[in-house]
Amino acid sequence: MTVVDDRQTQMMRETVPFAGTLGVEVVGNRSEEVRARVEWRPERCTAGGVLHGGVIMSLADTTGAMCALQNLPDDASGTTTIESKTNFLRAVRDGFAEAVSRPLHAGRTVVVIETDVVDAAGRPVAKVLQTQAVLRG
Amino acid sequence: MTVVDDRQTQMMRETVPFAGTLGVEVVGNRSEEVRARVEWRPERCTAGGVLHGGVIMSLADTTGAMCALQNLPDDASGTTTIESKTNFLRAVRDGFAEAVSRPLHAGRTVVVIETDVVDAAGRPVAKVLQTQAVLRG
Amino acid sequence: MTVVDDRQTQMMRETVPFAGTLGVEVVGNRSEEVRARVEWRPERCTAGGVLHGGVIMSLADTTGAMCALQNLPDDASGTTTIESKTNFLRAVRDGFAEAVSRPLHAGRTVVVIETDVVDAAGRPVAKVLQTQAVLRG
Amino acid sequence: MTVVDDRQTQMMRETVPFAGTLGVEVVGNRSEEVRARVEWRPERCTAGGVLHGGVIMSLADTTGAMCALQNLPDDASGTTTIESKTNFLRAVRDGFAEAVSRPLHAGRTVVVIETDVVDAAGRPVAKVLQTQAVLRG
Repeated sequence: MTVVDDRQTQMMRETVPFAGTLGVEVVGNRSEEVRARVEWRPERCTAGGVLHGGVIMSLADTTGAMCALQNLPDDASGTTTIESKTNFLRAVRDGFAEAVSRPLHAGRTVVVIETDVVDAAGRPVAKVLQTQAVLRG
Repeated sequence: MTVVDDRQTQMMRETVPFAGTLGVEVVGNRSEEVRARVEWRPERCTAGGVLHGGVIMSLADTTGAMCALQNLPDDASGTTTIESKTNFLRAVRDGFAEAVSRPLHAGRTVVVIETDVVDAAGRPVAKVLQTQAVLRG
Repeated sequence: MTVVDDRQTQMMRETVPFAGTLGVEVVGNRSEEVRARVEWRPERCTAGGVLHGGVIMSLADTTGAMCALQNLPDDASGTTTIESKTNFLRAVRDGFAEAVSRPLHAGRTVVVIETDVVDAAGRPVAKVLQTQAVLRG
Repeated sequence: MTVVDDRQTQMMRETVPFAGTLGVEVVGNRSEEVRARVEWRPERCTAGGVLHGGVIMSLADTTGAMCALQNLPDDASGTTTIESKTNFLRAVRDGFAEAVSRPLHAGRTVVVIETDVVDAAGRPVAKVLQTQAVLRG
């Protein structure tokens, strides 16, 4: 059972204000794997009590960027998302959605991140492939 | 100059609670074109005062679903996003992001929606292609 | 009615051998719009006499690269496809598939190309969004 | 070391003529994993002796469809690709490209397939996520 890391969560929200607005909680933050979640709540839903697809994409974009930042070349100054594609596999109607981001490719100009989103029972919710540009200067 | 439609905004937020949480404002809502925006605000940003990519994807997912709902076959009961892909073209640092969703294909089993996101000056911010499944029963 | 440009076709096939293998024919080649087609033939089909999705993606990747090459910064040496996403809208069972590529964004590090593929009657067959990296040195 | 299955290759090419045109060779064909390859050859290249991105996408679309066909509900009559997204990770300059397709989600209306493409040394070449519609009647 994974648990939320309050210190990491606070640090991340100070850097990324929208993560606080959305309620992102960091579970783990290593270069090989970043893990964070958002609890199901009515105000995070689309019609019918289903967690909004935008919440899931926002969560994955946040963990993806956190992961990319830890997989940059030494001379890089930062990263920005170039593109992101999500396949939605299952609706989340309670519990939480947890995103796990891993580097698929860490190059000189781009970093490609793969993110699996699962529900509280560990079932697949979404799969995300995204490209982050390596910024310099 | 487009303006926000308060009645449409209220109706949409009653159906999609997360749209209220995010601050989505509806500008126009026709089957050929759905238009809505989110204002830039510090609490909607990632690092560096840039509107979070998740905000842009959430906005586009919301207008995409609104557009798909108006392009369903007669016997359909609803729609759900199967997949969504976003190319990010420009950062938003003030003003607002406005999404314009149009149907690219309205079939028996899926509806494909194309969404252009622009900034307050009308410059391209993102392009989204998404597939919505047609639900029945 | 568009027509094939034999000289442009020959030049392109000399540079990109697979375009010859696939039977790509160039119709127009300007920086704002590259247009090329592949004729329907049995040996280019998947099951059921439908033009293979790979043919359509290969055609669009070829026109996309041709378009990107004409929209590079002055100091660039070339381009390579980072990612490509295709939505398939209609099967091609005769005639040809024609791809029309246009630049959506031409930046310092990436060029984003939008490609519409239509059939011989001009009906939408596929929509492609792709990112090309700008190479240097 | 994987080897080509000549009988499976022949059967597949009879059903999908373009697979023969492209030179696809089947290595394994099970519902949990479909594996096939295309050898590097000059006539399959883009500029600079690099295997064309279209070859890689065509290969992955072929293995993806083969995998989807084995993961359909009992009442389905076939499958067709709705959308496909590829991230390119490394150029192939010799040897072959081998695609490995696995089902990520097998539902009533869609099957989602994940495909990893590697080179002859097993290094990542591309990652593909695609959605196949379940056809009936």
